[in-house]
Amino acid sequence: MLLSALLMSVGINSCLCVLFFILYSVLRKQPRNYEVFLPRRLAAGTSKRRRNKVARYIPSIKWIWKSWRPSEKELMESSGLDGVVFMRMITFSLKVFLFAGIIGVFVLLPVNCFGDQLTVIDYADWSANSLDLFSVANLKIRSPWLWVHFGAIYLLTAFVCCLLYFEFRYIALKRIEHFHSSKPQPHQFTILVRNIPSSDGSSVSDTVDRFFEENHLSTYLSHVVIHRTSKLRSVVDQAKKLYKQVKHKKPVKKTPMRFFSRKDTPEGHYERVLQELEQNIRLGQAEVSAPGKEVRAAFVSFKSRYGAATALHMPQSINPTYWLTEPAPEPHDVHWPFFSASFMQKWLAKILVVFACLLLTILFLVPVVLVQGLTNLAALEFMFPFLTFILSMKVVSQIITGYLPSLILQTSLKVVPPIMEFLSSIQGHICHSDIQKSACNKVIWFTIWNVFFATVFSGSAFYKLSVILDPKEIPVKLAVAVPAQASFFIAYVVTTGWTDTLTELFRVVPFMVSYIKRSFEPSDDNEFVVPPMRYHRDTPRVLFFGLLGITYFFLAPLILPFILLYFCLAYIIYRNQFMNVYAPKFDTAGLFWPMIHYTMIFSLVLMHAIAIGLFALKKMELATYLLVPLPVCTLLFNEFCRKRF
Amino acid sequence: MLLSALLMSVGINSCLCVLFFILYSVLRKQPRNYEVFLPRRLAAGTSKRRRNKVARYIPSIKWIWKSWRPSEKELMESSGLDGVVFMRMITFSLKVFLFAGIIGVFVLLPVNCFGDQLTVIDYADWSANSLDLFSVANLKIRSPWLWVHFGAIYLLTAFVCCLLYFEFRYIALKRIEHFHSSKPQPHQFTILVRNIPSSDGSSVSDTVDRFFEENHLSTYLSHVVIHRTSKLRSVVDQAKKLYKQVKHKKPVKKTPMRFFSRKDTPEGHYERVLQELEQNIRLGQAEVSAPGKEVRAAFVSFKSRYGAATALHMPQSINPTYWLTEPAPEPHDVHWPFFSASFMQKWLAKILVVFACLLLTILFLVPVVLVQGLTNLAALEFMFPFLTFILSMKVVSQIITGYLPSLILQTSLKVVPPIMEFLSSIQGHICHSDIQKSACNKVIWFTIWNVFFATVFSGSAFYKLSVILDPKEIPVKLAVAVPAQASFFIAYVVTTGWTDTLTELFRVVPFMVSYIKRSFEPSDDNEFVVPPMRYHRDTPRVLFFGLLGITYFFLAPLILPFILLYFCLAYIIYRNQFMNVYAPKFDTAGLFWPMIHYTMIFSLVLMHAIAIGLFALKKMELATYLLVPLPVCTLLFNEFCRKRF
Repeated sequence: MLLSALLMSVGINSCLCVLFFILYSVLRKQPRNYEVFLPRRLAAGTSKRRRNKVARYIPSIKWIWKSWRPSEKELMESSGLDGVVFMRMITFSLKVFLFAGIIGVFVLLPVNCFGDQLTVIDYADWSANSLDLFSVANLKIRSPWLWVHFGAIYLLTAFVCCLLYFEFRYIALKRIEHFHSSKPQPHQFTILVRNIPSSDGSSVSDTVDRFFEENHLSTYLSHVVIHRTSKLRSVVDQAKKLYKQVKHKKPVKKTPMRFFSRKDTPEGHYERVLQELEQNIRLGQAEVSAPGKEVRAAFVSFKSRYGAATALHMPQSINPTYWLTEPAPEPHDVHWPFFSASFMQKWLAKILVVFACLLLTILFLVPVVLVQGLTNLAALEFMFPFLTFILSMKVVSQIITGYLPSLILQTSLKVVPPIMEFLSSIQGHICHSDIQKSACNKVIWFTIWNVFFATVFSGSAFYKLSVILDPKEIPVKLAVAVPAQASFFIAYVVTTGWTDTLTELFRVVPFMVSYIKRSFEPSDDNEFVVPPMRYHRDTPRVLFFGLLGITYFFLAPLILPFILLYFCLAYIIYRNQFMNVYAPKFDTAGLFWPMIHYTMIFSLVLMHAIAIGLFALKKMELATYLLVPLPVCTLLFNEFCRKRF
Repeated sequence: MLLSALLMSVGINSCLCVLFFILYSVLRKQPRNYEVFLPRRLAAGTSKRRRNKVARYIPSIKWIWKSWRPSEKELMESSGLDGVVFMRMITFSLKVFLFAGIIGVFVLLPVNCFGDQLTVIDYADWSANSLDLFSVANLKIRSPWLWVHFGAIYLLTAFVCCLLYFEFRYIALKRIEHFHSSKPQPHQFTILVRNIPSSDGSSVSDTVDRFFEENHLSTYLSHVVIHRTSKLRSVVDQAKKLYKQVKHKKPVKKTPMRFFSRKDTPEGHYERVLQELEQNIRLGQAEVSAPGKEVRAAFVSFKSRYGAATALHMPQSINPTYWLTEPAPEPHDVHWPFFSASFMQKWLAKILVVFACLLLTILFLVPVVLVQGLTNLAALEFMFPFLTFILSMKVVSQIITGYLPSLILQTSLKVVPPIMEFLSSIQGHICHSDIQKSACNKVIWFTIWNVFFATVFSGSAFYKLSVILDPKEIPVKLAVAVPAQASFFIAYVVTTGWTDTLTELFRVVPFMVSYIKRSFEPSDDNEFVVPPMRYHRDTPRVLFFGLLGITYFFLAPLILPFILLYFCLAYIIYRNQFMNVYAPKFDTAGLFWPMIHYTMIFSLVLMHAIAIGLFALKKMELATYLLVPLPVCTLLFNEFCRKRF
């Protein structure tokens, strides 16, 4: 890619950013958009419907200031510890890339420029220079300037590790503080016991009572056995639906009652249906308490949190597949379907999900490979000769190389988080926060594999699997393939990164849905729900740009300013969204941080592997050997953090 | 190797076995050998000194019967659960190889023989046939007979897995039974707390008291802070030494007192020295209770086992590197040096030990490669042309190929268990049983790597490391290299395996030591110690033969009868040793079994990998693909067992 193509891309996207910022500031002031852009404030009743019609249409940047202002404490109060952890991930990345950016732009970039491996830079016509001239590829074999890169790698690693340590410690302390500051809550006194063994004759309830009275006499308080209520729930749902119907029907009255017989008045009909439902509910309630509907799981409550903790941490049974204890989830966080699953079923479900994830990861390569084909103009011309004329147009070729590929890739990536969430939900977790954590993990690795590695290796050939199966060669192959994709990823950051934050700001899908809904039911004052933040969608996305920045830090330092800009955008926009849009539904109390930590460590080790391969390619034997301790130390540091926190 | 060489080896070793069995039966009846062969019975006072001088010199096989007879319960009483687990490992192997042997000898061996890939078997002169004719190498590419091997692999895997499951369950139940049947012991009421954080001003003892009174008020009983006593201990050791000297000196009196001045009577001298020591001990005791000598660790006792278990399983501190809890080891099992080590020190020690083990493993390849050179006559003749004449002698060549290599290898392997025990002892364990377990694990992997893999791959070339770094190729490379070493390993089982058990029976080193000692101090009625069983030395050895048997089960079924014989010998001899020689010093309560289990699983998976490679080589695509689920299922089974027990 030429510098001009990059500049064009940067230009387009900067204009888009400014345009959309202005548009957003206008749109959010329209009362009918409150539901999309300020649902949180609407629900809290703090968004005043403004009367001044003119002020509504004047763009302003006040919202940026507003989202900048709140302190961490306020964020904690409004979005819980998870929100704080998410924002700290962004500030952490900002710190890292400020440091990396200074080194990269002021030290590495000039060093790369003054190398003369490829061609000398054409200072007269900057935009005609290839981006490769700014990368490490421009340095000669055995160039002593490579030691500058060597030093930069050590420096960045040390900086990131220190920062990671302090950040982890900070979040660990915050977790404890959070626990101490919050009032004792019922679920802290309760544990969930599953796989209660069946004893002949007695009911589950009796078994639980007997067991805990025998083993935890002094602290045991009571228990609730879980029942299968799917039938009852369906009846209740039916009733709720009917309530909605009735509520909507009464004031309208003019719509024809196509479904009911004409002889009947609508009120009489509803009365009969409601009576029937009431009957059904009573029947269902009676049925639920029958012993056959008992699930072999129970919530067991204790007199103190200490008692609950004791019971939680002690192995309860000789057979470790019985009497499994888990901390009880918060009441609105419970995910019911897997309470009746046996140990074996849960285990098998887990294995199946792992296989499904692997399969998805492998099948997903197809669109990625197609996308990669598009970035390669020569390949495209070769495959579709009739396109030669169109492709020879400068604008078309620049759009194709600079914009289209990442757009297609990004669109197909949009479906991944919901799929992963679904897979995690059938994996046997018993609370939504666990599902989110598990899905987040899956999406992180999926993104790294299918965006980073697939792009890196499909660019040269479809030999990813062979690379994985040949670990000795990995560093050298990475060192060949990763720098080759530098321009793709710079374009990726500029296009996908920036537009990503904009789509997040605009909430494109909810905005469109609400628009369409409004055009069908114009004057509907429907109840609306404040959406929860989907961490499993956003965390991997932000982390991936961190990975890109760290990996390309010494290969193509030109990427760093764009990444830094991305994180600035993300900082403002996510703070805005936390204040105005998303309300926390449950709180994992900061348990997303370890994932963030591990991904950062992985990024560092990946960078080291590439560096080792690169120095080997550049025939710097000493530097290669001196780099080997670095990943080892980083992994040891990670191990230490894992033990310490 | 030819059949004749094998037969010669079998002949020599069978004769040696019979000879040594007879010799043993005579030697063990000599009262002066009781110390070596029957120390346990001597210590218990149950070995009657026989008066009948003639009967002493008549060989008998009564000892075999005696060691056959005791039931498992008696074994449990005399050697603890560890002894039972060890014997069950042997009986387990016996069952496996009885099954495998029947399939191998009656199904696979004939199938292999009637293949005609190599040459047709010369039925007239059996002994001139190469051993390869009895192996799977004799089957043609795409031979339908290979499906017999395919079935046999599935059958054996299923059999071993079933057996493993039942065995693990049996041992888990035995562990619980053992716990229930034994009386409550002090160490069950106690936990060891380490890394007690220093609080300014107050002593460790006060800190512990305050902490447990605050957090475990209802169950906390008392504690003992650990003190640094190395100085005191050295004084006590001095005193003990002196006591020994005095005890031995008094009756003899004729040896010249070279060390002491002539003017002094020996009694007066000893009295003065003793007084001095007493003084020192008192000083030392006073010093030990000074606060500077306190170690930040303590044994904390509770009122009930339940209380101790609660405190053990609960995380005690916000910082998980403080207040680390461990179950207290049995009093005579404690290993003192690492009580003062901080979390960080222990962790670093562990990492260093891992590196040391890796280094040892790599450096150890040198003797193995040398040994492998010896088995290859052609290479030897090429390197030392002057030996051609000697090597052309049939006896020499047969001894060299059939006997010498494994002898050299085995001798150098003898030093490994003590080294690994030493490495484990500086790894930060706090009890001897943990050290033994850790050493056992190290020796198992060392043996598998340095005997099996080094032999397999050095036979063809020194490309082991390249194989490891190229996992895709592993099955095929194994399938080429492993069958090539079949004759070496058959010889290995016959020579090393059988002589190993004999050296165990004869306790060669203690026997020689006692002989030499007796010739220097003829009439010494020294106190002797009953030796403990060194599980970390014997378990890996027995397991390794299991691994050989399973790996070569379908490649060269000829190995199976010899392995079966090895296990029969081992069964008799180890039972004998448990009854007569070894006394348990501490009991891990059967914690060696998981290691045995994992090694068996590893053997199975290794066999599957080789089978996949072999079927790929023999161009049986369908069989290759149908085999892939087998290792996956085996690993899943292992995972299940790990969770279940």
